[in-house]
Amino acid sequence: MKELREAGVGYPVWIGNGPEQAEALDFLAKGRDVLVLSDRNVAPHHLDGLCQGLANAGRLERLVLPAGEGTKSLTGFSRVLDTLADAAFHRDALLVALGGGMIGDLGGYAAACYQRGIDWIAVPTTLLAQVDAAIGGKTAINHAQGKNLIGAFHDPLAVWADPSRLDSLAAREYRSGVAEVVKYGLGLDDDFFAWLESNAEALDDRQQDILAAAIEASIRAKLKVVAADRTERGRRTLLNLGHTLGHALETALGHGTWLHGEAVAVGLLVAAELSARRGALERDVVARLRTLLRAFNLPVQFPASVDNDVLAQALELDKKILSGRLRFIGLEGLGKAVVWDDVERDEFFAAVNAAQEAGNG
Amino acid sequence: MKELREAGVGYPVWIGNGPEQAEALDFLAKGRDVLVLSDRNVAPHHLDGLCQGLANAGRLERLVLPAGEGTKSLTGFSRVLDTLADAAFHRDALLVALGGGMIGDLGGYAAACYQRGIDWIAVPTTLLAQVDAAIGGKTAINHAQGKNLIGAFHDPLAVWADPSRLDSLAAREYRSGVAEVVKYGLGLDDDFFAWLESNAEALDDRQQDILAAAIEASIRAKLKVVAADRTERGRRTLLNLGHTLGHALETALGHGTWLHGEAVAVGLLVAAELSARRGALERDVVARLRTLLRAFNLPVQFPASVDNDVLAQALELDKKILSGRLRFIGLEGLGKAVVWDDVERDEFFAAVNAAQEAGNG
Repeated sequence: MKELREAGVGYPVWIGNGPEQAEALDFLAKGRDVLVLSDRNVAPHHLDGLCQGLANAGRLERLVLPAGEGTKSLTGFSRVLDTLADAAFHRDALLVALGGGMIGDLGGYAAACYQRGIDWIAVPTTLLAQVDAAIGGKTAINHAQGKNLIGAFHDPLAVWADPSRLDSLAAREYRSGVAEVVKYGLGLDDDFFAWLESNAEALDDRQQDILAAAIEASIRAKLKVVAADRTERGRRTLLNLGHTLGHALETALGHGTWLHGEAVAVGLLVAAELSARRGALERDVVARLRTLLRAFNLPVQFPASVDNDVLAQALELDKKILSGRLRFIGLEGLGKAVVWDDVERDEFFAAVNAAQEAGNG
Repeated sequence: MKELREAGVGYPVWIGNGPEQAEALDFLAKGRDVLVLSDRNVAPHHLDGLCQGLANAGRLERLVLPAGEGTKSLTGFSRVLDTLADAAFHRDALLVALGGGMIGDLGGYAAACYQRGIDWIAVPTTLLAQVDAAIGGKTAINHAQGKNLIGAFHDPLAVWADPSRLDSLAAREYRSGVAEVVKYGLGLDDDFFAWLESNAEALDDRQQDILAAAIEASIRAKLKVVAADRTERGRRTLLNLGHTLGHALETALGHGTWLHGEAVAVGLLVAAELSARRGALERDVVARLRTLLRAFNLPVQFPASVDNDVLAQALELDKKILSGRLRFIGLEGLGKAVVWDDVERDEFFAAVNAAQEAGNG
């Protein structure tokens, strides 16, 4: 079976939808009390099938919560813990998080805290979660003051990324995941970037073998970075390529207006543009990136309604520059993301404006 | 300065109330945003003094919560997180937990989860917390279904056990801590047990040098066990000597009727009695233990109102024996706690009844 393992990361990632993965899951769940956590969007498509595969579990509980970021809260956390505690599940219980990033983050965090830590398995059902959220052991819930402000590092026992689960994804959600896939190529793996250019159409069509290959290359890239820096003190920040602006755009547009990956797509372009203007990145890579993003119908510029001041505020840019906290992820060549801490306001907005202008073309 | 370090435990324990400890705290807090968490019983005695010692902190916030186990809840957890988040504290912030076991458990757990983990320092203000709760990295809050059901392993940066902070402790609370001190001698260190017999009066009088020595020996004993088994899969269960019956007594009497250490005192006697009846422990140790506990005015029997059935129920004894989950901590000699998994109901209650009877004498 296709199983990725990376030295320094203590769990395997299974890719595929064959009987081997189902057997592996059954093996890990055998005889244990199992809670399958999902949400109302995902459950109708995938919950019954998954639970049928857990025939040898001890007791099997299901908890289906409302979909959406609102569930990734102390209230949602409390609901999961209540379910585990009311069922009197022991420390050897297993939580299976079946859903997108929200369910994975919430389920992983509840698993981290129940009885000071029980095992969990991530079964991500969105492309974004398969290539990003489910990999790396970061779990969290949101706080009124910020996303992912409360959480834990708690590795899953295994991650099962099944490309066939993406069939039911809405087009925009799928695309949003593709932006993160492009990020891995752009920032960490130039061969993968070139492969994406060659296979853009097939990937956009969700052709299963191409999709599986894209997922595998993305996870490989992320696992390598995570293995080197589990708790995000150093190298792991490279994964934020495109995310400084991406997060600010999400905030400026109002959360939920743009999907995460849509904002990241524009963030990637600005990072590439800034890097090219510094002479660190070949100019033609910016154009190649724009072409690739367009092939996936991802945005290459943000709405003109977002002006620089709003963006600066969302970025907390001035504050960050003043306090020396702005770490910008740039590119010293295709596939070579690096951290820069000397990016000033003017340089940043020059790149933003240039990227916006080029997006008109 | 008196600083205990144990290989395998990544933080020091400072014992004493000299300027060295204050300087060490100031050093760790220097330039950082600091939240001092305390409760309404402890704050009037110790909060101002501690905060004065944090003159070089960046921003200094205080949060004083209601005293009592009720605060060790999701609501209390949420209050601490709100304070950290509303102050926009970063990942490099420091939480100082100033109080008994409740504040340490809650503060440590909040520190474990805010921004996926910030540093914290435990400043325990009860004897029980100084020799037990603050040592070992276990943090938690309660759930309606059970104590400490939600939590994390999150080591503090340092623990500061200052015997002079115990001056303001009520007699019963102090005594409750002494029961845990006796436990370390009985279960892990026969020389310490003999030392306690020789110094019982001075310790009961809270004579500072004797108290400091007792705290040091207790912490040393606990650190050794914790170093060998951080997440309580094996050797750490030895620390539960006297606690199987102790917890059941607390439940049977109604939580809060007896203090934890009072229940543990009787639990220690039953453990010793059972061990003597097996021939694993010299009979005279049981008598020596009873004499020692009496010297501290600790109970040596529980009220007759608690009958065996109530106790068995509180212990979930039958369930545990049936499922093979009852692990009884016995003694194979003074200072030599061991795990037994073959203790049956009859043997257990024979020891309980014998200990009760001897307590009348």
